[in-house]
Amino acid sequence: MLIKDMNWFQVEDYLKHDDRVIMPMGSTEQHAYLSLCTDFILSSRIAEEAGTRMNIPVYPGLPFGMASYFTGFPGTVNIRPDTYGALITDILDSLHESGFRRIFLVNGHGGNSPVQTFIGNWLNQHEDARVVIHNWWASPEVMKRVRAISSNASHASWMENFPWNRIPGISMPQEEKPGINPAKLGQLPASAVRAYIGDGNYGGEYQRPDEEMMDIWSAGVEETCHLLENVWVAPMHN
Amino acid sequence: MLIKDMNWFQVEDYLKHDDRVIMPMGSTEQHAYLSLCTDFILSSRIAEEAGTRMNIPVYPGLPFGMASYFTGFPGTVNIRPDTYGALITDILDSLHESGFRRIFLVNGHGGNSPVQTFIGNWLNQHEDARVVIHNWWASPEVMKRVRAISSNASHASWMENFPWNRIPGISMPQEEKPGINPAKLGQLPASAVRAYIGDGNYGGEYQRPDEEMMDIWSAGVEETCHLLENVWVAPMHN
Amino acid sequence: MLIKDMNWFQVEDYLKHDDRVIMPMGSTEQHAYLSLCTDFILSSRIAEEAGTRMNIPVYPGLPFGMASYFTGFPGTVNIRPDTYGALITDILDSLHESGFRRIFLVNGHGGNSPVQTFIGNWLNQHEDARVVIHNWWASPEVMKRVRAISSNASHASWMENFPWNRIPGISMPQEEKPGINPAKLGQLPASAVRAYIGDGNYGGEYQRPDEEMMDIWSAGVEETCHLLENVWVAPMHN
Amino acid sequence: MLIKDMNWFQVEDYLKHDDRVIMPMGSTEQHAYLSLCTDFILSSRIAEEAGTRMNIPVYPGLPFGMASYFTGFPGTVNIRPDTYGALITDILDSLHESGFRRIFLVNGHGGNSPVQTFIGNWLNQHEDARVVIHNWWASPEVMKRVRAISSNASHASWMENFPWNRIPGISMPQEEKPGINPAKLGQLPASAVRAYIGDGNYGGEYQRPDEEMMDIWSAGVEETCHLLENVWVAPMHN
Amino acid sequence: MLIKDMNWFQVEDYLKHDDRVIMPMGSTEQHAYLSLCTDFILSSRIAEEAGTRMNIPVYPGLPFGMASYFTGFPGTVNIRPDTYGALITDILDSLHESGFRRIFLVNGHGGNSPVQTFIGNWLNQHEDARVVIHNWWASPEVMKRVRAISSNASHASWMENFPWNRIPGISMPQEEKPGINPAKLGQLPASAVRAYIGDGNYGGEYQRPDEEMMDIWSAGVEETCHLLENVWVAPMHN
Amino acid sequence: MLIKDMNWFQVEDYLKHDDRVIMPMGSTEQHAYLSLCTDFILSSRIAEEAGTRMNIPVYPGLPFGMASYFTGFPGTVNIRPDTYGALITDILDSLHESGFRRIFLVNGHGGNSPVQTFIGNWLNQHEDARVVIHNWWASPEVMKRVRAISSNASHASWMENFPWNRIPGISMPQEEKPGINPAKLGQLPASAVRAYIGDGNYGGEYQRPDEEMMDIWSAGVEETCHLLENVWVAPMHN
Repeated sequence: MLIKDMNWFQVEDYLKHDDRVIMPMGSTEQHAYLSLCTDFILSSRIAEEAGTRMNIPVYPGLPFGMASYFTGFPGTVNIRPDTYGALITDILDSLHESGFRRIFLVNGHGGNSPVQTFIGNWLNQHEDARVVIHNWWASPEVMKRVRAISSNASHASWMENFPWNRIPGISMPQEEKPGINPAKLGQLPASAVRAYIGDGNYGGEYQRPDEEMMDIWSAGVEETCHLLENVWVAPMHN
Repeated sequence: MLIKDMNWFQVEDYLKHDDRVIMPMGSTEQHAYLSLCTDFILSSRIAEEAGTRMNIPVYPGLPFGMASYFTGFPGTVNIRPDTYGALITDILDSLHESGFRRIFLVNGHGGNSPVQTFIGNWLNQHEDARVVIHNWWASPEVMKRVRAISSNASHASWMENFPWNRIPGISMPQEEKPGINPAKLGQLPASAVRAYIGDGNYGGEYQRPDEEMMDIWSAGVEETCHLLENVWVAPMHN
Repeated sequence: MLIKDMNWFQVEDYLKHDDRVIMPMGSTEQHAYLSLCTDFILSSRIAEEAGTRMNIPVYPGLPFGMASYFTGFPGTVNIRPDTYGALITDILDSLHESGFRRIFLVNGHGGNSPVQTFIGNWLNQHEDARVVIHNWWASPEVMKRVRAISSNASHASWMENFPWNRIPGISMPQEEKPGINPAKLGQLPASAVRAYIGDGNYGGEYQRPDEEMMDIWSAGVEETCHLLENVWVAPMHN
Repeated sequence: MLIKDMNWFQVEDYLKHDDRVIMPMGSTEQHAYLSLCTDFILSSRIAEEAGTRMNIPVYPGLPFGMASYFTGFPGTVNIRPDTYGALITDILDSLHESGFRRIFLVNGHGGNSPVQTFIGNWLNQHEDARVVIHNWWASPEVMKRVRAISSNASHASWMENFPWNRIPGISMPQEEKPGINPAKLGQLPASAVRAYIGDGNYGGEYQRPDEEMMDIWSAGVEETCHLLENVWVAPMHN
Repeated sequence: MLIKDMNWFQVEDYLKHDDRVIMPMGSTEQHAYLSLCTDFILSSRIAEEAGTRMNIPVYPGLPFGMASYFTGFPGTVNIRPDTYGALITDILDSLHESGFRRIFLVNGHGGNSPVQTFIGNWLNQHEDARVVIHNWWASPEVMKRVRAISSNASHASWMENFPWNRIPGISMPQEEKPGINPAKLGQLPASAVRAYIGDGNYGGEYQRPDEEMMDIWSAGVEETCHLLENVWVAPMHN
Repeated sequence: MLIKDMNWFQVEDYLKHDDRVIMPMGSTEQHAYLSLCTDFILSSRIAEEAGTRMNIPVYPGLPFGMASYFTGFPGTVNIRPDTYGALITDILDSLHESGFRRIFLVNGHGGNSPVQTFIGNWLNQHEDARVVIHNWWASPEVMKRVRAISSNASHASWMENFPWNRIPGISMPQEEKPGINPAKLGQLPASAVRAYIGDGNYGGEYQRPDEEMMDIWSAGVEETCHLLENVWVAPMHN
């Protein structure tokens, strides 16, 4: 149930019996040997699988996010935070104007999380709405499975290496990269980040067997479906 | 040659021998009986076909654009002009930082055109860059073929009805809708626009035979390829 | 009936029987051998003649507009699009607060047209208002007369050469300049624009007889008056 | 020597031997029985007389300024401070790009003075420039003459009543209005300001003989000319 | 009665019987031999003494203000005017949301005064509120006492030298510095300001006996208390 | 070594041998029975103790932060994220202009963390600078001690109850409050947050013995000192 397969009459009909909607939030940024669009591909696919199963419309995802620390790697796109906050605000305004009230954002990029602060302010102006940012990769069921394999798992490592964001014909390094110190990164400009993290993997092996990855993936879809049904706090005083 | 099928090493390699790049600009807004994502689907596909043929990388497209006049139709997303200008500015900054110098934007939505003014100001700060907005549907070769069929052709009419943005199972009205007066629309808020334009078609039949549409489509791809090769003005004094 | 000849008591009185108002939008930018203020002078004069004839108050015009592509020519003033959008928004807020509901902007500069997008968003917040941007030089009756003389007519050519924006003592070149390719201009920074267009004329002769020009002028004033009476779409559902 | 009587070639020539330029800053706001454009008319005229005498080009003035406290009076236009700051910043950028280095702003409205803070920040980015805001009515020679007539002189009183901003056919009240307490005004919204100040005069008689006014006017022009020649601080370390 | 000594229950209780609140506005900027935080220390202390005496809660003060002209002196912090206006606007929104209606800002820095324009616009959106900026050092009773000692008294001179903002162990120059011409300063970037004003004192002796200073201080506290009780204009039509 | 005890000469001297500086970031927001300024008091005190020990200057802290979710509790101040980002950006610009290069922000409020994204963009424009946000309460040594006492410890619980932010005369509830589900909070407007969390404590007892608290405090100061010496990544390629 994708918005791109619907016209406006169909959205109007849907809103007569439900007010939930999904939008993926991605990023186009270095992911070492994996696709530059890894966060966009994965969040979009999680959203589409869950939305289809739950009969909730899924908007096309945002391909670009906040990634200032990766602009030293060619191909990366960085949206500044005030731009990104304005963009999300405009989208929320539009969804609310359409009639959606429970808005579920499937986020694929940790760097996008600060947009929560813009959403908090938006909510104060739209008291009948609810907005959830779901960091699908960081949810308990997904994290449990990741850690069962290895605690050395991070940005651009095996943990993000799924069949749908690998580049055909690119073989992965065989070693396990030691974890970088993420606390060091925050103080650095992008040029120093590139010097510090080499190929872009933050730590961990580069690839794991597909059956392990599909188990993680299924848990991600399941958990997203579960939240779409159960996460909402009912209106209290409004 | 899509950015989503490339990693950062590959972009770095590409930039050693070429500096062109493509990005589609779409919109998610009422298109009468057609997909809400019509402008996004068509501009993305034109861009991808042309980029693949010309070996120029294509970024994922922007799904949302400036559509304030359509917010009375559910499903429409409207990005305000200062947000949209900031978004394009951030993307241009990132592409320039990566090393791209000739940036080709395939635009699928007339309402996005005003972003040209933001681009003009950006260019004054980046004198070694060139940026083209290509309104693919309004280019001479496409327009010639459209007018050969009918001069009554506009937003959400047959002119935008391609196999890839029709909604399965939705049948089209058989009549030809008289053209609305676009000059009247500009003065109206979105609620009055909806009252004025009914189903959303601005004028014309709703569908034409696919062979006619594929001829238009081919011309659109051809012309885009031609421009990617020939449109650029060489640096003059910088 | 110029606002500069009215005090606030008189505006309050006027608003008891009419809610229309006029404001010119100009630009100060290179116009080859003609006045830098050509667009400001002409839009102001069209507005004042029409407003006087129709008994509708005319605000003083905006002398500066969006002209990023001409900043390579000394004397040009460029207002960035977010500034210009904010300026028009503040003015519309003020006119609405005063009690005006039908606002007619006489625009003298094509580069100002993108402000329409800001106006569209403003209208959605002020559903009882109507706002028209009237590009006086591009209206059907004016264009018909221009084309009857020559299709080679553009920025800073004879088409904009009226008695009230010529510089005393400056003689015009006698040749007819070939039209530049406007499609090339959009991709260029201002420095390259200057190198490309030489004296600033976009194409055409530099001067035509005053009787031809006065015929064009009269048509411009007439058409403006006609629109001030007839262009408005009545409120529909608000 | 008005910019509206110059083309870009002439500005380019001027800049070979001088780098000074003048721009008036006005406001369109209630002035009791006087023209709504009083501040715009007076600052423009002072600027034009001084510029002509000193052979310094004068740009057309800004008709609108910051006047939030007067929006309860119909006809008033209020520009918000961030808009006004952005507008002045864009203009300064343009003048600097043209080649002007000593920029003299003739201000006719006290409410515009806070834009000085935006100018201060702009100067830090343009160390070779100088910018003066000249509040012509508050300068020592003008104030000396005003106070010699009466210390009860303020906004919209006799002090601002010149032949060029009176409304034909409007007779002035004969009494002298007691001064309002300006300190009270700052805490009030516009609706309460209107209730507080009645016709809009802040205090004083409504009119004085023209010969007194012309003496004040001449002093204003003289002082402006004097400053245009002598106010500038030479570059020190840049 | 300081907000830092209150919890939210206590503020809720207070608001049942009073709606006044105080916030100091300071600056951290060069003050010659005195503390960089002079304006912050003094405005905070005036506010706290007055608030305690009057039983009105005092928020912690803003340590930073608008000081673009002093950035050539190490230690100075400059907040740009649009940032500062947004900051004050957010604070006013919060205080109003809490339930405060009469907001009293004790300002210690002349450069902050332009924020009045932002406040004026905010008031128009909150007609039941009143906001006063009190420049404590410039109030009549304080000024009377300052001038009785010397008319040569200005930024960073004896006039601002109180026991609570002197640096221990720093001795003051014994001479009286001639007044600089403040009218010259406004046209200069910060680097030239530093060259122009030397140690940072705008004019006057560097220190006076504490008994003189305590008399000034007491007048400042008294006058602040008086205004907190008497300055307010009652609602008129709202 | 507090900036409020220094003049600009002393800062200039300091910068000849060191380039580190500290600034606390607080918030004024509900903390149940504790001071509204808890986050401001604690971050300021940690900063001041560490700065004094390490001979690094400490600026006065920011009393207000991003707290949109608490505006339903009287006394809370909420700074919007674009305002807060602009504020931090202006401060970083000023510190860099002064000559500081290693900037250490002691943050007392989790809601301020998203400002990291603004800082990342700022760093890309100032490649010779380093900026660290130190969430003092969440650092490993502090967290280890907190968890040794209880894992039920959160906003406004015993974990934040130190001698310096208790309200004299207010007694604490004796029970242990069950932890609220923080994941639920993010989707809610402030009014619903207040209904959901009651007195404002997120979970845990309200008070623990001072000796336990002082052990935590000491660890916080120690760790801050350690980081001030050791956290910095040396310049790599710039």
